[in-house]
Amino acid sequence: MLKVLVTTVPFGETNKLPLELMENISVDVTINPLNRKLTEIELSDLIEEFDILVAGTEPITKKVLQKATRLKLISRVGIGVDNVDLNEAKKRNILVAYTPDAPAPAVAELTIGLMLSLLRSIHISNHLMHNGEWKRIFGRRITEVTIGIIGVGRIGSRVLRRISSFGSPQILANDINSDVINNSKIAPSLKINWVSKEEIYKNSDLISIHIPKTSLTSSLITKKELLTMRSDTLIINTSRGGIVNEDDLFEVLSNGHLGGCAIDVFDNEPYNGPLSKIQRCILTSHMGSMSVDCRSRMEIEAVEELVRYVRGKKLKRPVPLSEYEIQKAFFKIEKP
Amino acid sequence: MLKVLVTTVPFGETNKLPLELMENISVDVTINPLNRKLTEIELSDLIEEFDILVAGTEPITKKVLQKATRLKLISRVGIGVDNVDLNEAKKRNILVAYTPDAPAPAVAELTIGLMLSLLRSIHISNHLMHNGEWKRIFGRRITEVTIGIIGVGRIGSRVLRRISSFGSPQILANDINSDVINNSKIAPSLKINWVSKEEIYKNSDLISIHIPKTSLTSSLITKKELLTMRSDTLIINTSRGGIVNEDDLFEVLSNGHLGGCAIDVFDNEPYNGPLSKIQRCILTSHMGSMSVDCRSRMEIEAVEELVRYVRGKKLKRPVPLSEYEIQKAFFKIEKP
Repeated sequence: MLKVLVTTVPFGETNKLPLELMENISVDVTINPLNRKLTEIELSDLIEEFDILVAGTEPITKKVLQKATRLKLISRVGIGVDNVDLNEAKKRNILVAYTPDAPAPAVAELTIGLMLSLLRSIHISNHLMHNGEWKRIFGRRITEVTIGIIGVGRIGSRVLRRISSFGSPQILANDINSDVINNSKIAPSLKINWVSKEEIYKNSDLISIHIPKTSLTSSLITKKELLTMRSDTLIINTSRGGIVNEDDLFEVLSNGHLGGCAIDVFDNEPYNGPLSKIQRCILTSHMGSMSVDCRSRMEIEAVEELVRYVRGKKLKRPVPLSEYEIQKAFFKIEKP
Repeated sequence: MLKVLVTTVPFGETNKLPLELMENISVDVTINPLNRKLTEIELSDLIEEFDILVAGTEPITKKVLQKATRLKLISRVGIGVDNVDLNEAKKRNILVAYTPDAPAPAVAELTIGLMLSLLRSIHISNHLMHNGEWKRIFGRRITEVTIGIIGVGRIGSRVLRRISSFGSPQILANDINSDVINNSKIAPSLKINWVSKEEIYKNSDLISIHIPKTSLTSSLITKKELLTMRSDTLIINTSRGGIVNEDDLFEVLSNGHLGGCAIDVFDNEPYNGPLSKIQRCILTSHMGSMSVDCRSRMEIEAVEELVRYVRGKKLKRPVPLSEYEIQKAFFKIEKP
């Protein structure tokens, strides 16, 4: 019987179907015994006996894969593959599948929620009120601000479409893909100004990041970039930890620069760092994809790939070759 | 020289135009010396020497008006007139103007922000993370839930239009105005089910309230109504304090009923009551209209009425007769 390790947690919690699908094909399933994101060493110690990995964002590095002598399939619950050494997997004939579309609506919706919280200081007022302090804080409506979007793919484009129901704010956007820039259907009612990232840093009231993590985008935004922003600029990161350098962000916020930020993703998760000292920084626990419907869809799609593999069928959502090429060119996995 | 008392605060803070407009017509302006919402007694003590009142939500009762022997105009910065004894003002030949349209976009936008915070537990996760606790909490997307809207006027209709960009959730709605119910243009892409308030209480995952305060709507939602709701229902009140009975809401939440709530308006403001003990209750300081643009527009429109009055022109936004009739039928002003 094939042995399956599910590392991503929670799993099968709001919808049992992913677990039932695996029962139906008689595989031997182990759910992450530590019930949190595994480290490279923990995963190395566990992986040896397993044929299939249903993976989260834990580091699936060369070191892990060297131990994974039986592994034939990594099925990622989610879109980012920055945690998987794709070319090392390929060398070892390990297939890699993912669920690129399922998380997008939930991440976009959380992003809009964080945007409105930041613009209207909901988090600040809520904190003050729970400490007995009444203060009517001025906010800005979406149409009053210039919004900068870095990365207009599956998630960034959905963020723009949802913004458009609030009116027509000034939109600055950046994407490395020229097909995206030439696509007039992203958010038809918005006028999108395609500019450099530097122009976004300099001229936005609110910046939201929707790009994958590679060696090019890791620490894309450091102290230098943060200091080119306006003193009251707001930043949202629901993409991947470390694209905004965490130490630099903490330093800059501590010194009174920036209006606030909302960070859902961290270098090391569970996060337990100094940003928690800063009240104008909204912190959430990597909850972008954590809506009941999107999380279920991600888990089901990832298990469906596993079922296809076990039944000898072709995978439906293999990670595309372009991702392998990007990693070959730009990537170096270094994770704790 | 006519003497003007501005009681609403903050005033002229982000835009000086309202102050400049009054300078231009040479009136003698006094801004609320206590810099917070006045009580009935405080306002009674102040009002005697003033000809014009630029008002907030403080109680402008019969008792206050008996002292207001010089008063000729009350210009409300905002829409609700539940704090003004309209028929007593009429008896004393005091005109009353208001700004019914200006606050609506800002209130609707805050409501959507509160909706997304509640649905995705942004406030809970933010609180936990600031206390060093990592917990990935499941949320629901707008399309996954049944949303109940009580009152589909200027604000409720805007809330519905913004919701529609997130997809097509199940919408239950109630309005006492048959013109509203027969208006197919409120949110064309949504299917709105017009139902009784009782059906909204019973069958909604999230209830948002957008009605004026009258003796009919004060304590509209008490323990009885709260207990007919599902154990995980979410409630938003950005309309007027006390439409949801505060004591009952606290009791019901304390006993573990309801998923959470977001309250922006209170019986007595500044609020300093027990809801602050409940983390799943988002509290904000009456900030619905507090976007820079809407607040400016409200202040400017209210001062423009004052300028019209001083110049002997007809008011542009007098409170309509229907409001006087509603108060005559249903209203009794009893405020601390």
